[in-house]
Amino acid sequence: MNKPLLRGSSIGILGGGQLGQMLSMAAARLGFKTHIFEPSSNPPASNVSSKFTQSKYDDYDALKKFASSVDVVTYEFENIPTGALDIIETQCEIFPSREALKISQDRLVEKEFINKLGFKTASFHKVSSLEDLTSALDQIGTPSILKTRRFGYDGKGQVKMYSSSKPEEVWKSLDQKDLILEGFVNFTSEFSVIGSRSQDGQISCFDPGENVHQEGILRTTTVPADITNQQKTEAVLITAKILESLNYVGVIGVEFFLEKGSLVINEFAPRVHNSGHWTQNGCTVDQFEQHIRAIAGWKLGNAERHSNIVMENLIGDEIHKTDQLVEEGSIALHLYGKADIKPGRKMGHFNRIKK
Amino acid sequence: MNKPLLRGSSIGILGGGQLGQMLSMAAARLGFKTHIFEPSSNPPASNVSSKFTQSKYDDYDALKKFASSVDVVTYEFENIPTGALDIIETQCEIFPSREALKISQDRLVEKEFINKLGFKTASFHKVSSLEDLTSALDQIGTPSILKTRRFGYDGKGQVKMYSSSKPEEVWKSLDQKDLILEGFVNFTSEFSVIGSRSQDGQISCFDPGENVHQEGILRTTTVPADITNQQKTEAVLITAKILESLNYVGVIGVEFFLEKGSLVINEFAPRVHNSGHWTQNGCTVDQFEQHIRAIAGWKLGNAERHSNIVMENLIGDEIHKTDQLVEEGSIALHLYGKADIKPGRKMGHFNRIKK
Repeated sequence: MNKPLLRGSSIGILGGGQLGQMLSMAAARLGFKTHIFEPSSNPPASNVSSKFTQSKYDDYDALKKFASSVDVVTYEFENIPTGALDIIETQCEIFPSREALKISQDRLVEKEFINKLGFKTASFHKVSSLEDLTSALDQIGTPSILKTRRFGYDGKGQVKMYSSSKPEEVWKSLDQKDLILEGFVNFTSEFSVIGSRSQDGQISCFDPGENVHQEGILRTTTVPADITNQQKTEAVLITAKILESLNYVGVIGVEFFLEKGSLVINEFAPRVHNSGHWTQNGCTVDQFEQHIRAIAGWKLGNAERHSNIVMENLIGDEIHKTDQLVEEGSIALHLYGKADIKPGRKMGHFNRIKK
Repeated sequence: MNKPLLRGSSIGILGGGQLGQMLSMAAARLGFKTHIFEPSSNPPASNVSSKFTQSKYDDYDALKKFASSVDVVTYEFENIPTGALDIIETQCEIFPSREALKISQDRLVEKEFINKLGFKTASFHKVSSLEDLTSALDQIGTPSILKTRRFGYDGKGQVKMYSSSKPEEVWKSLDQKDLILEGFVNFTSEFSVIGSRSQDGQISCFDPGENVHQEGILRTTTVPADITNQQKTEAVLITAKILESLNYVGVIGVEFFLEKGSLVINEFAPRVHNSGHWTQNGCTVDQFEQHIRAIAGWKLGNAERHSNIVMENLIGDEIHKTDQLVEEGSIALHLYGKADIKPGRKMGHFNRIKK
């Protein structure tokens, strides 16, 4: 285990979106400085960081400078090019580790990893050719979902397959061939566990939150989730097992389906997670601070929940609902300060305390 | 009333200390950018702001540039030179207003203002000469406190007068002559109300917090304060009256003494206040967000308290207690990232939730 980061140390964050922004504020609350690395101009996190480098992930000089200016590096998204990590690693440590990143970057590898731990996922089949697709459909059936193995998020890079779908046409329409066919999980509800692990192996999980997605994008998280104590315990144990087997440091988001009362793991994200935003107003120490504590070599905070919360995302035009939410007064707004409104773009979220 | 600030607007903050830092993070949470103006290098707020101007308050060019880059200006301390405000005012609005600043900058004017509203203060006497001091001592007696009328904070600029004190010697030892002699209030407890007023006159107060000072510096605030409902109501009404009579916009901190069960007003600060830091972990909307909402022309948030809190300051060397507090896990740390430890310097604070 490394020594805890000293007061005034600097934390490098790859990615300057809202997750980077909220990580940066959590770091500042603990007395740390942050340095954001992000290709786009004027990202949300740059408004609350000590330093901001606007560069691409293949600008190795910029990456080297960035890494040498900080004491540890973390990230807000999992699709970081390997080359960038190679460069950074020569200068300083990256948390969570590359192993966790490598697994979560590839849906196929991720599902194989989860199954190997003894946990259930949707049925799946690797698809690299039209022949693969045909035999995968034979095996898994329809409805099922054809997904890109890498770089998918918020429902992007997915095609739903029905009995009426024509494999040849679907295959021709795709612009890449590294795919996976996933069986459809007939779930009754979705929930997630935000877990964290410190450098000395301490594990802590926030209470499971129940999620509602629309068009592949998270809409709401409600805490506590409507699951049994047994299901909650099982989900926490699964999360702990994943954290331990990866020798993980930081916060992880593990998504579950409930199918006929049993747990099916959808996926995990090696970072702070949208479904953990409720912790900002439901707990004394939120997921962002928990992540910073972990990567800084500190003890984790107490993940206890003091309030029941419904978190709701403000997506695209919904940012205009802010005026009305401000009038309401008893909700906690978290806006990202993004200049342009785009359909499907996460512009902010709010937490409403339930009595 | 002005139009509410638009999404992405910029807020100028005079002063880059911890109050500016926490105001800046509250502004970012609401989607605003901030620009910090501060004479010293590397102040806490510069780590969480979009822009930082390091300049003196008599650098009028820098002030003009600063003011023209933002949509509204506020401040984290009350001792801003008048000349700086004159310059800024030509470019954009300042909240809270100069009237509130002018009154709170001068202990004599402040006490006269409070008395005029019909509320009780310590007895006081203007002191501008040795003769004044002698007659003030005759009138007010000892023990009493001789204070500078302006620029005092955290117990600085004060001399306690006893029956054994020699007025001539004390007078000679002082380096300024704008003074006030204040009668000693034999208080049983101290508490404060953090009030806020929006641009359209909405008023909201957080629950009174009970304060313990040592050597003139706030040590702890405990919420709820151990006062009667009647005392609480009276304190809130007094705060509201002060806010209204100043046509105030923003957050104010009003400090009270309890003397034989009745309320004596110590002073008010036209800004977010150390004794309001408990709101960060006791309320959904804290004093920093409340202030930003007010100066942005928004509705105020709900000041309801969801948890009982003890706030404790980390002063000077006490910052080293952090290691132990981190282990404790169930407290919320707020560190200011100040590089140098000095005796009496506020380095951070923490909120502990009481069951």
